[in-house]
Amino acid sequence: MSIQELKDRLAEIKKIDSIGAVLHWDQETYMPEGAGDARAEHISYLSTLAHRLHTGQEFLNCLKGLVNMETGEPLQPQTDADTRRMLYLAWKDYRDVSTLPADFVKELALLTAKSQQVWQKARVENDFNAFAPYLEKIIDFKRKEAEYYGYTTTPYDALIDKFEPGMNTEKITILFNRLKEALVQLVKDIREKGTPIDDKPMQRSFDVDKQWEFGLKVAEVMGYDFTCGRQDKSAHPFTTTFHPTDVRITTRLHKNNFKTAIFSTIHETGHALYEQGLRIDDYGSPLGEPISFGIHESQSRIWENIIGRSRDFWYHFYPQLTGMFSRPLVNINLDRFYKMINTVKPSLIRVEADEVTYSLHIMLRFEIEALLIDGKLEVKDLPAAWDQKMEEFLGIRPEDYKDGVLQDVHWSMGAFGYFPSYALGNLYGAMMVNRMQKDIPDLSETIKSGKLPIIREWLRNNVHSIGHRMDAEELIRKLTGESLSAEPFIHYLEKKYRDIYALPNK
Amino acid sequence: MSIQELKDRLAEIKKIDSIGAVLHWDQETYMPEGAGDARAEHISYLSTLAHRLHTGQEFLNCLKGLVNMETGEPLQPQTDADTRRMLYLAWKDYRDVSTLPADFVKELALLTAKSQQVWQKARVENDFNAFAPYLEKIIDFKRKEAEYYGYTTTPYDALIDKFEPGMNTEKITILFNRLKEALVQLVKDIREKGTPIDDKPMQRSFDVDKQWEFGLKVAEVMGYDFTCGRQDKSAHPFTTTFHPTDVRITTRLHKNNFKTAIFSTIHETGHALYEQGLRIDDYGSPLGEPISFGIHESQSRIWENIIGRSRDFWYHFYPQLTGMFSRPLVNINLDRFYKMINTVKPSLIRVEADEVTYSLHIMLRFEIEALLIDGKLEVKDLPAAWDQKMEEFLGIRPEDYKDGVLQDVHWSMGAFGYFPSYALGNLYGAMMVNRMQKDIPDLSETIKSGKLPIIREWLRNNVHSIGHRMDAEELIRKLTGESLSAEPFIHYLEKKYRDIYALPNK
Repeated sequence: MSIQELKDRLAEIKKIDSIGAVLHWDQETYMPEGAGDARAEHISYLSTLAHRLHTGQEFLNCLKGLVNMETGEPLQPQTDADTRRMLYLAWKDYRDVSTLPADFVKELALLTAKSQQVWQKARVENDFNAFAPYLEKIIDFKRKEAEYYGYTTTPYDALIDKFEPGMNTEKITILFNRLKEALVQLVKDIREKGTPIDDKPMQRSFDVDKQWEFGLKVAEVMGYDFTCGRQDKSAHPFTTTFHPTDVRITTRLHKNNFKTAIFSTIHETGHALYEQGLRIDDYGSPLGEPISFGIHESQSRIWENIIGRSRDFWYHFYPQLTGMFSRPLVNINLDRFYKMINTVKPSLIRVEADEVTYSLHIMLRFEIEALLIDGKLEVKDLPAAWDQKMEEFLGIRPEDYKDGVLQDVHWSMGAFGYFPSYALGNLYGAMMVNRMQKDIPDLSETIKSGKLPIIREWLRNNVHSIGHRMDAEELIRKLTGESLSAEPFIHYLEKKYRDIYALPNK
Repeated sequence: MSIQELKDRLAEIKKIDSIGAVLHWDQETYMPEGAGDARAEHISYLSTLAHRLHTGQEFLNCLKGLVNMETGEPLQPQTDADTRRMLYLAWKDYRDVSTLPADFVKELALLTAKSQQVWQKARVENDFNAFAPYLEKIIDFKRKEAEYYGYTTTPYDALIDKFEPGMNTEKITILFNRLKEALVQLVKDIREKGTPIDDKPMQRSFDVDKQWEFGLKVAEVMGYDFTCGRQDKSAHPFTTTFHPTDVRITTRLHKNNFKTAIFSTIHETGHALYEQGLRIDDYGSPLGEPISFGIHESQSRIWENIIGRSRDFWYHFYPQLTGMFSRPLVNINLDRFYKMINTVKPSLIRVEADEVTYSLHIMLRFEIEALLIDGKLEVKDLPAAWDQKMEEFLGIRPEDYKDGVLQDVHWSMGAFGYFPSYALGNLYGAMMVNRMQKDIPDLSETIKSGKLPIIREWLRNNVHSIGHRMDAEELIRKLTGESLSAEPFIHYLEKKYRDIYALPNK
């Protein structure tokens, strides 16, 4: 068997996935509503086709001829590093895809398709009991899935590994416990001792067309290549990739919520720069994939928060912003604006949370997922557990299910193990920026002068173009000499928010 | 072999085609320019996949088990009519697809891809000689293709049959000779004896956003279902179908050319109504395909011309139009407007031609194609032949190649045999409307009152929902009791334009 044959087979599967992504993008942006069933059928055809090719005997024979199927090591000992890595990733993907019986995959797909509909209705109707039996079934399936994959310590580990290869419950627990302790204290200090910020002007009327225009301008200055990308509108912002030369983002616009559109555009542009920065000649190879969900999230969060909510960033953009929105921003200087986009306030909804409280929302979900999957929490007791943890983490309690335990789509999709990546992205991001500051000593000036492509280039060279040649742990160690830690992120937040809220430094 | 297995295989091929259509639609509407190569690769993957499935041994075995491969008759004599027809069409498609050797298809695809680029440049640079060697090669290929398909009288027949099943050079020549005679005379009468129409106001400034809005409104009144369709912008207007529940049109807008956008929207909506009117449960079966290019064109031309350029139509819409465009249409009454959208003037460019001269452009191309394919005209003599025929048909001569022989994309694509369908569409359309007038006696009132869905329903019942259960000839005979003739179209034009140009009736 030749390496080329394996590459061709992998590239074919990748092409099918990319084509499916086009259909999905269209579904979320322009597809007429009546076309839903036909589109589902077309998308399902493509995923079945990809799955069939990936799990078929021909693929297996090809892989077997190249790789030790027990270890993922190449059969040819003198294989170069890239090929060795490619073979390992192909072997690992194959194990993941082929481990689950086809019937199991099909039943789970049917269940989650149905569950998402049930969840959507249940959320609107604030009816946890309608969703509960579906959630129970999904958890059963995910436990079975974990058994199929195998694990050493706890079944939840097997699920986490699919989003964050190399991570597990124990490692995350250590990171999150430290993070929780620091954030709960910081939020408490802000609430009790911080100088309050009045951010009501953010709810003034901001023309949506101008918001759109401004977002595009910011994305362009960040270095998003619009000859290989575009922005459209969708109900929920997302980034999607058909090829490194075709990476698209979406946003949503609200007249009376200026922050939503601009920070979601910056966030998605962060994701998009990652995808645009993958090497074109890696397309179709596992080497050309992003490292993990957490590393992807680090890219969006570096841009959205560390850079996009910095004083330096708005030093550059605020004059343009006030030029476009002279009315709603009248008499609001840069300092006031900077504080308004950085208010910290415990709130019920994860996707609307600020930079400080966001990770608390995640950690709460992580703890609950671990309990559910490991059988230590029953679905019937979930709402009470949710409310109790909201109290513990954020000091507030939801008044209903829809702003509480029913708010996220993830569980109805069966995406257990996904949430931790969001918070890990914050930790990865802070560590990367520490290193970036060493490599770009005048980083603050760079941002102030709007030379953002310098940052994009740093990320491209140090993260994006690597593709999946290393895992997250190795990347972080390579960049910082250390293993993943919550300290840099905590340090960053302490420094920024003690300043904003006029708190004494710790 | 079961019928169901064949249906499943055909449905799979159709799904792949539909998915390819989404990629193509995106390419023409929203795709960022840098994504062209990747998109070409994805589209090519899908068409290769569909071709492989269609020509593979498994498909053949399945078909062989159901159909006499010599005749297309079912092996099971007691097969019902729909299944019999489905099997026949599947057999005919299979012959077409499998007759051409894979290498031949591939080489031709490469040649035409290259030729289109060469043609595009040659047209801009007005350089026929740059395109000529490619055209020669394409003609060689098309002759070979005709040999592969087989024919009784002339190779051109084999090519025509792919666009207009059942048609051939001889039948078309008879129809076109009669049409040519009548149209040349009518154009001559209009030029020499008609009361001239000043249509300069059509070049006034019409706000493009309002044009867009007005076009959408007209399409909606026509009965285009926007829950299963949408309009977007593209360089060249087109209609595309992913499923009967997802049929999309495009248009282009010019500030100083009001007619372009609105009549292209009406034209494409005519095509779209056909596709939306195909039966959903026929999707994936050859029974669910449109009858032919000519029948498709009849639907767009009935709407664009017979209805859309009628006095009755504008009796309904003109008040709304003047409401939106009070400035450019100031002091222009309905009668004047009606005449302005129906001016007849021989011109060089087919796609800008009026309703009367349009078919002359087509007939000229038909005669030339027949000569080229049958080896009676050499490419080096083509420009002279073109100019001479323009003189003969339209009484004018192009001053350069780009407005003459180089104006159409079709030959560079290898689409020989396509042009006749455009004019046949006019003939089919006029015959259908004759019958429609019998079934809807108050047709004029129906249009005047904007009850256009009544017309859509007639077309849906009598044409669209039939799918490909009959060929064009059978459909026309069923509707009119006659075989295809140029007389109804000639009669329609004579009546309409002798009135508009105040010519005595013949």
